[in-house]
Amino acid sequence: MSSNDRVIIFDTTLRDGEQSPGASMTKEEKLRIAKALERMRVDVIEAGFAIASPGDFDAVKAIADSIKDSTVCSLSRAVDADIERAAEALRGANSGRIHTFIATSPIHMQYKLRMQPDDVITQAVHAVKHARNLCADVEFSCEDAGRSEIDFLCRIIEAAIDAGARTINIPDTVGYAIPHQYAETIRLLLERIPNAHKAVFSVHCHNDLGLAVANSLAAVVTGARQVECTINGLGERAGNAALEEIVMAIKTRQDLLGVHTNIDTTHILSASRLVSGITGFPVQPNKAIVGANAFAHESGIHQDGVLKHRETYEIMSAESVGWNANKMVMGKHSGRAAFRARLEELGIQLASDAELNAAFTRFKELADKKHEIFDEDLQALVTDTLAEEAPEHYKLVCLEVASKTGEVPEARIVLNVAGHEHSARAQGSGPVDASFKAIESIAGSAASLQLYSVNAITEGTDSQGEVTVRLEKGGRIVNGNGADTDILVASAKAYINALNLMQAGGNKAHPQVASV
Amino acid sequence: MSSNDRVIIFDTTLRDGEQSPGASMTKEEKLRIAKALERMRVDVIEAGFAIASPGDFDAVKAIADSIKDSTVCSLSRAVDADIERAAEALRGANSGRIHTFIATSPIHMQYKLRMQPDDVITQAVHAVKHARNLCADVEFSCEDAGRSEIDFLCRIIEAAIDAGARTINIPDTVGYAIPHQYAETIRLLLERIPNAHKAVFSVHCHNDLGLAVANSLAAVVTGARQVECTINGLGERAGNAALEEIVMAIKTRQDLLGVHTNIDTTHILSASRLVSGITGFPVQPNKAIVGANAFAHESGIHQDGVLKHRETYEIMSAESVGWNANKMVMGKHSGRAAFRARLEELGIQLASDAELNAAFTRFKELADKKHEIFDEDLQALVTDTLAEEAPEHYKLVCLEVASKTGEVPEARIVLNVAGHEHSARAQGSGPVDASFKAIESIAGSAASLQLYSVNAITEGTDSQGEVTVRLEKGGRIVNGNGADTDILVASAKAYINALNLMQAGGNKAHPQVASV
Repeated sequence: MSSNDRVIIFDTTLRDGEQSPGASMTKEEKLRIAKALERMRVDVIEAGFAIASPGDFDAVKAIADSIKDSTVCSLSRAVDADIERAAEALRGANSGRIHTFIATSPIHMQYKLRMQPDDVITQAVHAVKHARNLCADVEFSCEDAGRSEIDFLCRIIEAAIDAGARTINIPDTVGYAIPHQYAETIRLLLERIPNAHKAVFSVHCHNDLGLAVANSLAAVVTGARQVECTINGLGERAGNAALEEIVMAIKTRQDLLGVHTNIDTTHILSASRLVSGITGFPVQPNKAIVGANAFAHESGIHQDGVLKHRETYEIMSAESVGWNANKMVMGKHSGRAAFRARLEELGIQLASDAELNAAFTRFKELADKKHEIFDEDLQALVTDTLAEEAPEHYKLVCLEVASKTGEVPEARIVLNVAGHEHSARAQGSGPVDASFKAIESIAGSAASLQLYSVNAITEGTDSQGEVTVRLEKGGRIVNGNGADTDILVASAKAYINALNLMQAGGNKAHPQVASV
Repeated sequence: MSSNDRVIIFDTTLRDGEQSPGASMTKEEKLRIAKALERMRVDVIEAGFAIASPGDFDAVKAIADSIKDSTVCSLSRAVDADIERAAEALRGANSGRIHTFIATSPIHMQYKLRMQPDDVITQAVHAVKHARNLCADVEFSCEDAGRSEIDFLCRIIEAAIDAGARTINIPDTVGYAIPHQYAETIRLLLERIPNAHKAVFSVHCHNDLGLAVANSLAAVVTGARQVECTINGLGERAGNAALEEIVMAIKTRQDLLGVHTNIDTTHILSASRLVSGITGFPVQPNKAIVGANAFAHESGIHQDGVLKHRETYEIMSAESVGWNANKMVMGKHSGRAAFRARLEELGIQLASDAELNAAFTRFKELADKKHEIFDEDLQALVTDTLAEEAPEHYKLVCLEVASKTGEVPEARIVLNVAGHEHSARAQGSGPVDASFKAIESIAGSAASLQLYSVNAITEGTDSQGEVTVRLEKGGRIVNGNGADTDILVASAKAYINALNLMQAGGNKAHPQVASV
């Protein structure tokens, strides 16, 4: 196929995905996800919104400095300061892109920008030119394009392309579009804008009506050649178009869509689990491609069909997106080399030998408690190892819980706080509540608990629990993670991890956000 | 609008949704869901596959006997015995429908049916006629229509309509369709089949590529007037089209789609929670319409926009689908009348005064432990009350757990088994594991644990945990539920509930399944 048949995959998990309430990530977590995206051969990684906060700037810069095979992009409003900050963060990039945006719908221009349409065009042109002076690759987005007037879109886009924008993005900011109508908009723009052939047209869809993937694909049929999307469809409200669904629909229905992507689909599942683990956002079992049931065929009639002729019911193979038919099971006799090899197969790269050693030590501890170690256990174990990489102001020394029906549960905790041991007891409505209260009576963080979630990672009664604790204080949100075969210990670890992240400050400031 | 502009909503949560591995439900659970669907004004409720098992038959019959405002439907293969069993189950229905199907794609006819195309038509016609002799309302489905030849579809559908089918369903059994192509198929069928005007054309889409909702809506644009869907998109593999997304897209984009439904959308959220609670299938936060974040607007820019002009970012209101801006909070001083009134507002109908009393007693117990009681607590409490309605062969008398870091967790349990108390101790890799092992040492069920999931129902450290335990034995799967502010007690309750369901037998046989 010619390059004209290639759809550019632009992943915005780290920018629009992170805007999801509670999904904010540390720089280290973003870097791990960026590496997974690079390994999957994502074309463009939107790493953040550099001017939003020092933490966002640092994350964009760290990703620009270390990613080599993907273009790294920063968002910026159509104002000089934003654009300059984006350029600064991207300076070390092998291939960088500035993505600048302004609202183009009557409702947004009137109520949000309080600007006249002609002035919006002037500002857009100025912004694109300024960005081009600092970066060869500039993308321009018409915020709320879905509710903008087509004639105005034609005018502002023609001007933006003349000013040097190589990519023009038409987002459906509020998730309001319907496929046939959205596709028609893209077709009209390509037909009417005289210099349209000088830019790649891009789509960015939100899933409020469950149509983000369909809208993106419909637009590809009428000429869009970049799709903006996120792993697991993470994103504000109902999220963005899911990368895994876009990519697999394009791959599976090449006969109808006639396009392809560069994505190595075999890394999809591990990327999905990485994002889910870091954000604490679970993937429902009936999620397409990456849900636990996505490739489960239970039906008697179906199983019969599958046996008779595999293609009867399967339109794509589980292996093609990284599900292993035979999960390798490790145990207490597995050595360091096998451990490292398995991590690599799972797409997990640890930054240093020290991290590998820490993870291997935990693996051995786990293998003592648990009969068989599955891939999911390894993923959790690594998450847990890295979670502890946060500067440990608070450290769990000992947790003791007594719980009996009819009596009030009580927990005793010993914490090492900056080198000194403190102990406390507390009662609660349950043993987890009692543990958290005991920890708080030492830490006194005054943070509020926003989310407590448990995932049993593997099947069987000795499965590990992976707990996510989300704390909020003064508008800052942190997600702490902890994994253990003991759900109470996992819970305490997650709470303490969240406190350490809160304590570390700065790098996890709640991001300012944009709506493109 | 004329009746021609109305889209019939056909819910198959209880049939195709239940085929999802692990989603099987008891008769009582199905009846609760059916009542919620009736309250929401669903047009047709597919209650099951009557011939599949005695449990399925009983469930279809119970629903047919008690639902008055919705049509109740049973699936059947295109064979006499299936059709007769369906008719028998539907005998008490105010309005009943037999839904019969046969495969029409070359791959299915060749490998699954091992029949010649002409013989498939003969069998279909015979089935429809036989069904019409037993029931005035007959639907005919072409299994795997998405991969069937259009000329053959025209022939078999024309024959089925002549034989008396009032509804013709064109399922995308394997989730392979793309909207514009699927819509074109519907358009062609309506254009080419001479008697097409005598039937309502229906669509039934699977979500393997994330396109189930889009495919359904595209088909509506070209003339389909029934959509088959499920609450939360429950269903095999990646599930079916989500009812809530179909209905809200039709409502929100009436300007483009030009059709409407009869659904009372304000009951959507409570139905979603009911189905999620009963099946143990969580809804991910970024799920459209019913996800926890679906209406959360965090972005600073967005919040500003919302304040300046509400419509800037909101395309539909949270209240319209049942999210309450102000959740009523109850506490220990709330009385029985307020409790009953709140349950009614939540769409929860208890079958008897005894059930109401049991739920109110639990409410008072909970209010003693927990400061504020939210709607979610009430939902969990009712689920828990009804869970205990299963014949209690095993009853929890006492659970005592001691857990200390560095030591092996131990649990002591006292169970009442058929009137006699038994106690046991066990150690485990965590306190939950230890409890389950202690229970098993008494019960000796030899069932395998397939799923252990925890939902923290409300925010705050004193939140209740709702635990689902899925046990499997000899191909039979049961889901036990338990709620308590003590996660260990909730876990033990859920395990014991699952054992009781397993013990009760019969009514939760693992369903045979069909692929329509």
